[in-house]
Amino acid sequence: MKQIQFSSFGQPSVVARCVDVPEPTAPAAWEVVVKILAFPINVADMAVLAGRYGSLPKLPSTIGMEAAGELEQCGSSVKDLQPGDRVILLANNNWSEKRTVPASAVHKVPSEIDPIQLSMLKVNPATAHIMLTQFEKLEPNGWVIQNAPTGSVGQAVSQLANASGIRTLNIIREGASATHALRFGGTATVVDRVDLAEQVKSEIGPQPLRLALDAIAGAGTNHLASALSEHGTIVNYGMLSGEPCLITPENTIFRNISLRGFWLSKILNRLNLGERTELYSTLCNYLVNGQLKLSVDSCFDITEINDALKRAEQRGRVGKVIVTPCKQAGA
Amino acid sequence: MKQIQFSSFGQPSVVARCVDVPEPTAPAAWEVVVKILAFPINVADMAVLAGRYGSLPKLPSTIGMEAAGELEQCGSSVKDLQPGDRVILLANNNWSEKRTVPASAVHKVPSEIDPIQLSMLKVNPATAHIMLTQFEKLEPNGWVIQNAPTGSVGQAVSQLANASGIRTLNIIREGASATHALRFGGTATVVDRVDLAEQVKSEIGPQPLRLALDAIAGAGTNHLASALSEHGTIVNYGMLSGEPCLITPENTIFRNISLRGFWLSKILNRLNLGERTELYSTLCNYLVNGQLKLSVDSCFDITEINDALKRAEQRGRVGKVIVTPCKQAGA
Repeated sequence: MKQIQFSSFGQPSVVARCVDVPEPTAPAAWEVVVKILAFPINVADMAVLAGRYGSLPKLPSTIGMEAAGELEQCGSSVKDLQPGDRVILLANNNWSEKRTVPASAVHKVPSEIDPIQLSMLKVNPATAHIMLTQFEKLEPNGWVIQNAPTGSVGQAVSQLANASGIRTLNIIREGASATHALRFGGTATVVDRVDLAEQVKSEIGPQPLRLALDAIAGAGTNHLASALSEHGTIVNYGMLSGEPCLITPENTIFRNISLRGFWLSKILNRLNLGERTELYSTLCNYLVNGQLKLSVDSCFDITEINDALKRAEQRGRVGKVIVTPCKQAGA
Repeated sequence: MKQIQFSSFGQPSVVARCVDVPEPTAPAAWEVVVKILAFPINVADMAVLAGRYGSLPKLPSTIGMEAAGELEQCGSSVKDLQPGDRVILLANNNWSEKRTVPASAVHKVPSEIDPIQLSMLKVNPATAHIMLTQFEKLEPNGWVIQNAPTGSVGQAVSQLANASGIRTLNIIREGASATHALRFGGTATVVDRVDLAEQVKSEIGPQPLRLALDAIAGAGTNHLASALSEHGTIVNYGMLSGEPCLITPENTIFRNISLRGFWLSKILNRLNLGERTELYSTLCNYLVNGQLKLSVDSCFDITEINDALKRAEQRGRVGKVIVTPCKQAGA
């Protein structure tokens, strides 16, 4: 079978290789064998390949934060799962035609869910959901502001906020199309200019703005800080600018703005099985109800991994690059 | 009597004026008249005079965040206080020979406490105490790191930490004297260099470092972030560098470092009378027990306010500039 491996850090489309490895043997009693139907190329996967991530594997290594699949075999003591079940893979190293994992490392979902949408659920929607719920208590019809609304996390933020009766202010570049930025479900746009705080005030009036989601860092962090109400929180989850977060002492000291960081891997590691099941059941419901749909840029076969990564390296792309290693049974 | 006033924002030693105003009339039933024995020139007072503070008065205005004094008269319904009692003034606008304030705006202390030390208790030691106790739960013998150890807050941090069995790591400039920095009670010094995190590790070994106190901002904030253990908190309470706080997404995202701000005025406004009394009783005990003693640079008469402010404007000064409007009774 095919599997993606890499043996040095560097440009993702150069260092990744699609290699032939043996098919999985029969699973141990507590394991399952999963046929991988789809995986997205995540920005975090790109950072791992480039050697610029918070935790890096020993090389050579397999890779792949996310995937959705179908159970092919179940170990003798595995309960509540059977061949044919559709699942999200919750462990890493998923870029492969098949994966053998402990049964506790898959989350079973209804079979009708599109495997491509499903394959993107583990990271970006979970990030959006936890950032929206764990840092500030937002009132119904309350507002949140974000500075990368067309990114996959940004799309999920807008859609999950909508599903929860929260409104989003979406920062766009001067001259960019508001319609474009709002087509993923955002409520309103403001332009990244020095008068951001005034624009925010005129959009939301006297209502508080307590939560800002920062994918950019650099001066963008302080723009968010100045737009927030006193005592508000910025959650920094990305570094698109390549710059350090910047925040003036006027905002920290006199306006009591806090800056926090968010790394999903750390949080998932701390969840117990019940909490994790609840998280992904909630997110699956959003998919099933049509409240969550992330945009897809393009699809590739696993043997085309280098082309897929080349596409993922292009700036300005909106939507995920997807790889579909196996066709689903009966498809 | 003499009182300090100013009618434009600008260089503190230029805009402040010592003027003659009428003596206080008899206090209302709930008021007291306080003879001011001493007040310090606080960095926050300087910022108000310069027009660079988080809240600014309408001009012309009186000024003065802190003072200690002696009650001269008590209103007819004032209980538990009598003329001659020594007090800290908890309201503002204290730079005067006498002040009439509600009885609830003074905190009575034992008469033997030195009025000069007492006059410095409201702001810097309260800041140190709250920063040490309200952001991270420090274990006995735990560590805190700070980057302005010879400032008045820094001195109070070292001394209050000592009194509570907490140890302080004090950042000094390359080439500066460790002995000098530690003479206010600090435990150990580290040098502000790129290898700060390694120096910290070699000082404290495998123990966690969860709290950093930042008076400087700029790149100094990120140096603290890199020195902290994962999940640690930086509390920014000053802006000596004049630069925005800087913190890399590696520290926010992958190491879960939080940046918070601290402004004592906001916190004091939220305390109820019981909480405030407890805070200042605790701090007074440190004074009485000799566990807290802030350094004094120089003393001036109230008529010499412009010279006093000129001295306070000088960089590199260690210790507070004090003004003593009235002599104490019997002194």
